Amino acid sequence: MNAQSSVDYGVGARFSVAVMADDYADIILTALAEADSSGLEVTTDDVSTHVSGTEDRILAYIGAVIAGCARSGHHVSVHLLLSRGCPGELACELPPDTLAQGAEPPQLPVAGITAAAHWSLYPLQDGAEGDHMRHIYAAIEHARELGVEVRAEHYATRLDGDLNAVLQTLAAAWLMVGREVQHVVSHATLSLNSPTAKPGNNANNQPSAR
Amino acid sequence: MNAQSSVDYGVGARFSVAVMADDYADIILTALAEADSSGLEVTTDDVSTHVSGTEDRILAYIGAVIAGCARSGHHVSVHLLLSRGCPGELACELPPDTLAQGAEPPQLPVAGITAAAHWSLYPLQDGAEGDHMRHIYAAIEHARELGVEVRAEHYATRLDGDLNAVLQTLAAAWLMVGREVQHVVSHATLSLNSPTAKPGNNANNQPSAR
Repeated sequence: MNAQSSVDYGVGARFSVAVMADDYADIILTALAEADSSGLEVTTDDVSTHVSGTEDRILAYIGAVIAGCARSGHHVSVHLLLSRGCPGELACELPPDTLAQGAEPPQLPVAGITAAAHWSLYPLQDGAEGDHMRHIYAAIEHARELGVEVRAEHYATRLDGDLNAVLQTLAAAWLMVGREVQHVVSHATLSLNSPTAKPGNNANNQPSAR
Repeated sequence: MNAQSSVDYGVGARFSVAVMADDYADIILTALAEADSSGLEVTTDDVSTHVSGTEDRILAYIGAVIAGCARSGHHVSVHLLLSRGCPGELACELPPDTLAQGAEPPQLPVAGITAAAHWSLYPLQDGAEGDHMRHIYAAIEHARELGVEVRAEHYATRLDGDLNAVLQTLAAAWLMVGREVQHVVSHATLSLNSPTAKPGNNANNQPSAR
């Protein structure tokens, strides 16, 4: 196994943030400008934003952009994709069974903003002996340790908690599974400030901001 | 191989539609009310909407909801998840290597609305002999046949074309791979009416609606 830098190893993310307000463009552009992108390569187009760098910087940056948008008080919906172990575009450019240097799960401060997520984690390229569910159960146990409420739903696991605890859960699971599986992808839809969030859906009694 | 109904086989979707306007709630609720949900089970919460039924009904319904929102002229962002072959919540309730009855790829009318998508397709549970890339190359060739412009990007394939042709591409790939692989998941972010869409990004010269 050769140690790989995060960029060589294809560590990165795509995310799109939607702010449901007439002044969405100003809110998103301000949040992007105020978030610290040092050490990252960030490319935005009309569909989503691609971010590559180390895991902790990626998560801190995305957390800051989402928090900046959510502090407007408007309803915010996010689609987040985390990927590792498959650099390149259509085809992976790494030989199979290459494992990355094991980064520690990012530590993020409490955001003070409640988020709900529908989260899916896909261990890919884990070979014939792969046991997806073992990795996924471990990841869900870790989420509970982070104070995030966890509930299974169809095609996704629901997470409710502080925005940064939810993001730490996603990142920790992605990294934990990545210690054994080369190509690990995670997708999540996050919802913040939803007017239809119910207290019963949410560990932290999410307020309706609108 | 036993033939399974679409519900037994876990055929379904999750999607969330964000409309970037102050009156987003009215626009989304109207689009949901006007879309034909016959034959489907539809459950909406504050994060996303779960839809189960046959492939053609699921795609027609989601296409109608997205089109209804996009006809407002506002910028719309969608996260769509298609899943097959893994019914249940946390764990799949089907024995491995169960294949579904091969549904034909849905045929949808031209929507008359341009969409751009970042699309990822994951063949899961395809065993030791699995060849993800073969399935994915075939799916991309099918997209081109549907008149959709295709471009590889990091972690996703970009699709540009009529909304329903883009959705047909996603559905056809999901079904095509599903003829050989039990559990197939696809995720896409779709963007419509983006003010930053550039003609060079788009086969159909997407107009800026705002």
